[in-house]
Amino acid sequence: MRNRSPSDAVKPEVRGLTAYTLKHFEADVKLDQNENPYELPLDLKREVVDRVLRRPWGRYPEFVPAAVIKTLAKFSGWREDGILVGNGSNELIQATLTVTLGPGRSLVAPQPTFMLYKLMATALQAQAIDVLLKPEDLTFDVDALILAARSSDVVVVCSPNNPTGTPLEHDALVGVLKNARGLVLVDEAYHEFSGQTTLPLLANHNNLVVLRTFSKALAMAGLRFGYLMAHPEIAREIYKAKLPYNVNIFTLTAADLVIERRAALGEAISRLIQERERVTAELQKRPSVHVFPSKANFVLIRTAKPARELFDALYKQGVLVRDVSSYLLLERCLRVSIGLPEENDRFLKALDRALENKS
Amino acid sequence: MRNRSPSDAVKPEVRGLTAYTLKHFEADVKLDQNENPYELPLDLKREVVDRVLRRPWGRYPEFVPAAVIKTLAKFSGWREDGILVGNGSNELIQATLTVTLGPGRSLVAPQPTFMLYKLMATALQAQAIDVLLKPEDLTFDVDALILAARSSDVVVVCSPNNPTGTPLEHDALVGVLKNARGLVLVDEAYHEFSGQTTLPLLANHNNLVVLRTFSKALAMAGLRFGYLMAHPEIAREIYKAKLPYNVNIFTLTAADLVIERRAALGEAISRLIQERERVTAELQKRPSVHVFPSKANFVLIRTAKPARELFDALYKQGVLVRDVSSYLLLERCLRVSIGLPEENDRFLKALDRALENKS
Repeated sequence: MRNRSPSDAVKPEVRGLTAYTLKHFEADVKLDQNENPYELPLDLKREVVDRVLRRPWGRYPEFVPAAVIKTLAKFSGWREDGILVGNGSNELIQATLTVTLGPGRSLVAPQPTFMLYKLMATALQAQAIDVLLKPEDLTFDVDALILAARSSDVVVVCSPNNPTGTPLEHDALVGVLKNARGLVLVDEAYHEFSGQTTLPLLANHNNLVVLRTFSKALAMAGLRFGYLMAHPEIAREIYKAKLPYNVNIFTLTAADLVIERRAALGEAISRLIQERERVTAELQKRPSVHVFPSKANFVLIRTAKPARELFDALYKQGVLVRDVSSYLLLERCLRVSIGLPEENDRFLKALDRALENKS
Repeated sequence: MRNRSPSDAVKPEVRGLTAYTLKHFEADVKLDQNENPYELPLDLKREVVDRVLRRPWGRYPEFVPAAVIKTLAKFSGWREDGILVGNGSNELIQATLTVTLGPGRSLVAPQPTFMLYKLMATALQAQAIDVLLKPEDLTFDVDALILAARSSDVVVVCSPNNPTGTPLEHDALVGVLKNARGLVLVDEAYHEFSGQTTLPLLANHNNLVVLRTFSKALAMAGLRFGYLMAHPEIAREIYKAKLPYNVNIFTLTAADLVIERRAALGEAISRLIQERERVTAELQKRPSVHVFPSKANFVLIRTAKPARELFDALYKQGVLVRDVSSYLLLERCLRVSIGLPEENDRFLKALDRALENKS
């Protein structure tokens, strides 16, 4: 019976997928993953490892990490039975899509956006419906989103959007929520840099699912932590596709302490916002660069140069950015994370040299 | 449009599921989760946290954790491009089922077994086909497994099986592999306690997927680490449903050190095996207890008393075990993890008192 290829057991939709991968580059100035360049305070890190050393490593984490959920509820103002925690918000996106999508079901996502939504929907054999951003300014096409939401099972919006930095405004989101036939998943990965949140809408829109991560503003990308807030009835269903013991004792301990001491992180966030505005203003001075206004901790730029060429020219100068030119609508675009002031200066200088270079 | 209940967006198969949960109990003697009671050596734990403190927490883990995969390849003898690592082996079970299952597809699993396989298959809208263990001794019904394997997309076997402790013998597994139409997933969560592994079969059976965890013998349940070994072509497909950055820097660091120093853990494993044999022999002396022979770090027992009653009587004496009497075929059965010698003695004593008690 075994003359078949071993991967014949794999669903054709999956075989047709290109995996989400990221080539590894080393660089002095790393502006490719929208990480927070300000490390957590050393005393906080020490406190985390001291607490972890006092816990048994051979014992499973609590089945429901009640302490962290309580802290998140207090911090966010949302109810405990409507909160789930995950191994990064990616896991919670996956769980949400797993309980809602399958063949004959559909996901609506603006494009371009974070790739993982569509990849997961396709692996689940659902239809992925793209709603293009407005080509002229890469903002959300709200009318088209609302129309698509009327007949789809899940709408996902990353706000501010990755990789464009555009937020979905309050009224637009309310329009989507009111018209959506199914769930509306708002990925707030970058919300701390925008000063906006959809959280207040949760109380009156029981089809809203809000996702957050500790990987960006909260400087915990290496530890993997995210959480989801939704109506308890929805949270209970999504819970069924979440793995048991999905967040380990180290990350639970760190998340708890980081929320408790988040005031200490506020300054780093303010500095990154200031730097985003400074870098944007600097880029606007350059006639050969178009910069899209961003509410996140990165900016999207377009130049006349092919993106790969510009990427290489920056990389040769020790500056690593993200080439997003293969995304829909993003020809000749690069995404650049906001780093420390001196890193941003190095990027600007490297960009000038790269664009001057006639080669 | 929003007169529907919010959970209407959820697939009916999911709404019909009962979530995998575990009620939280505190107890002096914790024999309910098949954990390793011997903690990792303190110097190893200190080395892990020292290394973690030297890494940036605000940066994502490597996209592919090459160092750990290399270490696992060296340790297992399997090729690097056939190895995936996960946030516990649960995540790799989920990824494997996500790429293979959907409506019209089927999973075969012996029953009773670890609950998560069937739960995940149902969430993916696949058919879950139960192949009952032989009722008389709870060993695998190999003929029935082979027959079912001929027409299903995935067969999953936990060997030694949880919660019965029975291994699938080499010849039986070869029979399943030769006859299976799709993938054969062998969950070796407890293999270190059995002295058996299916690893040597990987080279000649490209439909075999072997799963391992660091949560049992390797005393890392709190840290969440598992890995998968398969033909590279299969690993490449499963990779597509695995989350990016799924294992955090703490767990990657710990896993690497634990493999490197695993000789130091061998003694704890030997002691647990000795204790399993001692506890089994002790239980066999008791005419009112039937104990099933186990190759794992737990034993399954059946008594005349209703399981819930016996569970409560043990719990009142500070001994926490697992009531598995709601599983198919396991009426009046409890699963008892092997603990430290003094913990096992406390269990035996508590059991005797509970069974003497005429109440």
